[in-house]
Amino acid sequence: MTSEVVDKYPSRGNASVRLIPRVDPVVYAPPPVSLLQYITAEQVAQYERDGFLVLPEVFSAEEVASFQEELDLLRNDATLRSSDGVITEPGSGDVRSVFSVHTISPLFQRLAADARLAEVARGLLDDEVYIHQSRLNYKPGFRGKEFYWHSDFETWHVEDGMPSMRALSMSITLTENNPYNGALMLMPGSHKSYAVCSGETPDEHYKASLKKQDYGVPEDELLTELQARHGLVGAIAKPGSVIIFDCNVMHGSNSNITPDPRSNVFFVYNAISNRVVEPFCHKPARPEFLGSRKHIERLVPETVE
Amino acid sequence: MTSEVVDKYPSRGNASVRLIPRVDPVVYAPPPVSLLQYITAEQVAQYERDGFLVLPEVFSAEEVASFQEELDLLRNDATLRSSDGVITEPGSGDVRSVFSVHTISPLFQRLAADARLAEVARGLLDDEVYIHQSRLNYKPGFRGKEFYWHSDFETWHVEDGMPSMRALSMSITLTENNPYNGALMLMPGSHKSYAVCSGETPDEHYKASLKKQDYGVPEDELLTELQARHGLVGAIAKPGSVIIFDCNVMHGSNSNITPDPRSNVFFVYNAISNRVVEPFCHKPARPEFLGSRKHIERLVPETVE
Repeated sequence: MTSEVVDKYPSRGNASVRLIPRVDPVVYAPPPVSLLQYITAEQVAQYERDGFLVLPEVFSAEEVASFQEELDLLRNDATLRSSDGVITEPGSGDVRSVFSVHTISPLFQRLAADARLAEVARGLLDDEVYIHQSRLNYKPGFRGKEFYWHSDFETWHVEDGMPSMRALSMSITLTENNPYNGALMLMPGSHKSYAVCSGETPDEHYKASLKKQDYGVPEDELLTELQARHGLVGAIAKPGSVIIFDCNVMHGSNSNITPDPRSNVFFVYNAISNRVVEPFCHKPARPEFLGSRKHIERLVPETVE
Repeated sequence: MTSEVVDKYPSRGNASVRLIPRVDPVVYAPPPVSLLQYITAEQVAQYERDGFLVLPEVFSAEEVASFQEELDLLRNDATLRSSDGVITEPGSGDVRSVFSVHTISPLFQRLAADARLAEVARGLLDDEVYIHQSRLNYKPGFRGKEFYWHSDFETWHVEDGMPSMRALSMSITLTENNPYNGALMLMPGSHKSYAVCSGETPDEHYKASLKKQDYGVPEDELLTELQARHGLVGAIAKPGSVIIFDCNVMHGSNSNITPDPRSNVFFVYNAISNRVVEPFCHKPARPEFLGSRKHIERLVPETVE
């Protein structure tokens, strides 16, 4: 089960906990015309510098309403509820995430391929892209739990076998994200450092980590250092906005005791040239719904499974 | 153990869950000259309307440093750590609150009586005041837990026997309170409604409630209604500021995963004429460190106990 690809970003196991420099680009080519239809050259530069970018109100109120309706359908679907790709809140049992929505919902399948998203991903990564992971996040009001600080890439690299930092996430906000309802917090510029984490990856770690992550969690001292260097900002956005963030930017969110739920639909675009190999932790790969290994040649499956 | 004082604000037990109007004033007299030395008539009106007021940077950096130093001493005092008045975080065991600091620390005893605080409390409540409760709150970085929505008065009334809404809290910020490190959130205007809560008060409820409150918690529907009416705001403040808030304003705070701790020192000023009687839940009163019954004649004890 060893990978033939060199491990550019060792983490966990014997790796010593520290910040190491990113060796991959953030933006892989000067912005092509196809990208500049959707975002400006200044926004591309900002994304390169900060590791994230908020595009306000890309989708119309009608589109957001249709996404929200689909979210409610999926969230309350009794058949789905018992599937592995549906994650519930510790305690309340409320649905917190529905994974792989681009394979179970024709609407979200179309959304993943929407040029306002996919063309931007292609342009920034300078490659064809596929969906490594997709999900609906639903952080309920009153009892929404926090997501602790993490770099997505650390897990995708160690547990999924993603070789390089040539992937990005797009979060489409379905509700207002304000500072008090658990908005995404990011450390701008942190994507240029890789926080090596401690600990061995346990078997079937993903089952526990979806509720509460204990591995792939940056040490306090590294987070303190990253915040001292970069500060932190909240991604505040109206519904229908798109938060684009690099696979290695440090991010997290606090709990949400406000009555306002916070929900979004979330796609991870990976460059085709960066398709996953064997996991670098030498454990079996995580399930398909967490890191796609089957549908890596095409952005949009022809049929919904 | 029945109280001879009429229960103006029944809650829990047979009381039906709903919002009932406040029958007490918020500001008890036109602002006297002694009050206007410290806050303006406009600020008094704002406090009356919103149920809270932030006074920016009342204390100097030197004063804040001395409070912070005293906080660290108390927080790390091994003798104190085992006492009832020291509350630790579920999970980490870190000290989260130290109660009754005005009786264990000469510095905080003097601070409670400082005219910048006590004179304002006297002026707003139009009475001599005493300390019903005091505490240091220390919400650590990374793992600071949320405090769920509540009206202080509901608990002070039901469990401590405080008859009327003639008390207020002052929180002196020792660190920056920003939207992301678990700042106090308040619903401005909510202090004019009383949210009747459900459930019986269990015996020795305070022991569990200091870590996680299960009674005296407003129902979702009432919080939704209050937010719809009033919205919510965060009390954002630099160190050394004073957040004054009415005993019945609905407030809470989210978790804090940022590296920045959030700490404050907190005094509850109650009007002498509103001194506590037997608890309205007909259970034994909570311990002295949660609701003073002994030191109700004098603001500042002559000697530190």
